[in-house]
Amino acid sequence: MTHVNPYYVNLKDSFLFYETKMQATAFEAAHPERRLLRLGIGDVTLPLAPVVIEALHRAVEEQAHWETFQGYMPELGKEFMKEAAAANYARRGVRIDPEEVFVCYGIGDDLGSIGGLFDRENRVGVVEPAYPAYVDTNIMAGREIIPISGTEENGFLPLPYPGLEAELVYLCSPNNPTGAAYSKAQLQKWVDWANEQGAVLIFDAAYEAFITDPEVPHSIYELPGAKNCAIELFSLSKSAGFTGTRLGYTVVPKALIREGKSLQAMWVRNRSTCTNGVSYLLQRAGEAALTEEGLRQSRASLGVYRKNAEILTSALDSRGIRYFGGQNAPYIWLRCPGQMDSWTFFSYLMEKAGVVGTPGVGFGACGEGWFRFSCFSTPEDTAEAAKRLLEVL
Amino acid sequence: MTHVNPYYVNLKDSFLFYETKMQATAFEAAHPERRLLRLGIGDVTLPLAPVVIEALHRAVEEQAHWETFQGYMPELGKEFMKEAAAANYARRGVRIDPEEVFVCYGIGDDLGSIGGLFDRENRVGVVEPAYPAYVDTNIMAGREIIPISGTEENGFLPLPYPGLEAELVYLCSPNNPTGAAYSKAQLQKWVDWANEQGAVLIFDAAYEAFITDPEVPHSIYELPGAKNCAIELFSLSKSAGFTGTRLGYTVVPKALIREGKSLQAMWVRNRSTCTNGVSYLLQRAGEAALTEEGLRQSRASLGVYRKNAEILTSALDSRGIRYFGGQNAPYIWLRCPGQMDSWTFFSYLMEKAGVVGTPGVGFGACGEGWFRFSCFSTPEDTAEAAKRLLEVL
Repeated sequence: MTHVNPYYVNLKDSFLFYETKMQATAFEAAHPERRLLRLGIGDVTLPLAPVVIEALHRAVEEQAHWETFQGYMPELGKEFMKEAAAANYARRGVRIDPEEVFVCYGIGDDLGSIGGLFDRENRVGVVEPAYPAYVDTNIMAGREIIPISGTEENGFLPLPYPGLEAELVYLCSPNNPTGAAYSKAQLQKWVDWANEQGAVLIFDAAYEAFITDPEVPHSIYELPGAKNCAIELFSLSKSAGFTGTRLGYTVVPKALIREGKSLQAMWVRNRSTCTNGVSYLLQRAGEAALTEEGLRQSRASLGVYRKNAEILTSALDSRGIRYFGGQNAPYIWLRCPGQMDSWTFFSYLMEKAGVVGTPGVGFGACGEGWFRFSCFSTPEDTAEAAKRLLEVL
Repeated sequence: MTHVNPYYVNLKDSFLFYETKMQATAFEAAHPERRLLRLGIGDVTLPLAPVVIEALHRAVEEQAHWETFQGYMPELGKEFMKEAAAANYARRGVRIDPEEVFVCYGIGDDLGSIGGLFDRENRVGVVEPAYPAYVDTNIMAGREIIPISGTEENGFLPLPYPGLEAELVYLCSPNNPTGAAYSKAQLQKWVDWANEQGAVLIFDAAYEAFITDPEVPHSIYELPGAKNCAIELFSLSKSAGFTGTRLGYTVVPKALIREGKSLQAMWVRNRSTCTNGVSYLLQRAGEAALTEEGLRQSRASLGVYRKNAEILTSALDSRGIRYFGGQNAPYIWLRCPGQMDSWTFFSYLMEKAGVVGTPGVGFGACGEGWFRFSCFSTPEDTAEAAKRLLEVL
């Protein structure tokens, strides 16, 4: 008899965003007259930049003619896309070798695979509240999870502490869901800790495009020593609106060695075995998004989302509700009013205001009593949501 | 100190196709005056069908306007694409529920992930010669491999035998690399064996579009009992020229239960945790490829590849070289002449004829002394390769 993966039984029944989507869908089916405003899942709403659209049409046309037709891609990414990623780092003064860049379909997908580099026998520290996949992918692999709790007291930016024992640590800054962002000095403490311990940091840089504070690093590799201890995941989902188009990259530095093994070489072996490369069309889209013109065009969308954040934080300010984020990040992390717990507030807000957010406890136990709004909705829906919030809060 | 995956040391140094590509690239660098003809990797050369190109342009245009913009996809696939897959099965009289269909970027990618359903403690039977990822992905997961050897005597179509002990078995029919294809009666023996043993079959249907023989099943689900024991992987790479565009799907039937667990439910949990869904653009391309018109247009390309197979097998026939395949499959599997081993013949052919093929031993020990040609090159290159073969064989 085939033995199934024995660790799935340790998972909660369903993935957070799947659960909130199901509940919202059920609500809409029961109340067809109500229109829900979705400030829940961090999905963008503004179209792709014109330069990306042009690149996509051009790439599609190449696939229509045998002279320009593109078959199998290199499993690690096309040279042009790896160079575009390296150039994106060079803009921040960070030198990344294109051979350290692995083109992928986005962070969500590589989070699902990156654990293949590591033994089951690693303790996984997760800076919480956190994107649930950090925890769930490691539970599926049978690893022990060590929550590293963000709290109101530490500004949801926990630092390494004496006695912390973990061989892998997941970090996201600017953070999803709290919007809190480590300064260079704070993140340096994690880098130094990892190098002292011989641990590996998995750094999720999905939200770097929202940073405005010059003290907040865009990449962990801005910090000395990070190439010896950190893997960085980057995505165009939020910065260029690629949530439904898909493209990202993962950086595994050649200087990252553990137990005498190069993790970069292992990831080459993993990707060339476990994938068949990323669609040519999407790599051309990614290249275009990372040109100067592509970045300039995307900034217009980012401005809209920042404005949404202002509208929502103004509403919270006027009701005296405590929150984090809304700056350097597209998320607002608020304390549920009236001492409600996270799921109670989720239902309350959906039923009373027709606004869907995300329960903070879904991001870890320390998120209980907190709630996440995303700023990716349309300006119209955001304004309407703020109005409704003022009515019910 | 972080513990790396301990099983990578059991892998051969590099993935077969990576190795042959490196050797061909090195040869070209050393001999810039020589033009290599590539009958190695199974990559297509003919452009996408017009109906697919139109669908892609349309989908790109949707991403340019907020009214039609598509963000995050459902992790398991958009409804339209799951229904297109189910309709494709219905054409063969096979009833598949869209909830059993999981849209993916192709077989190579899902082969890299599907092992996540299973415990390390399963013995993995691999019908060899085989696509190396069946073996390598399981070595990476620490599983024991049980080679099930194809030989000239069994027509490279081994059947279950008394004493075969394996809890997972990988099968590919029509086969890569041998081109041999199981009849319904033969494949039924595997289905019956798996149901008796409680084993799971992983069935790779990548080459079904090349089948002409009515006795050869296109899907394992044409056979009674298969939904109780088999996962099927399907791709548009070869049937519709999507090697560089990427789209496929995996079917996990609801009737597939092991140790009291629904593998379909587990795969829902896996995909909704470990992926963020497949690009909207590619799902629209896949939908178009699976319409009647899309299939009709693709058949023109398949005819070209079939003609290539005839040209190559004629050359082998005229030199009395023993081979399998070339019918029902885009591969020709030949015995290396002059008792050469596979890698010796690889070098001989590259140096003497400037033709690159794939060494049979790279697909498993029982492939030693055999060699694979693919029929996916252009008609011109195939004709030139046949001419050169006649000169050196």
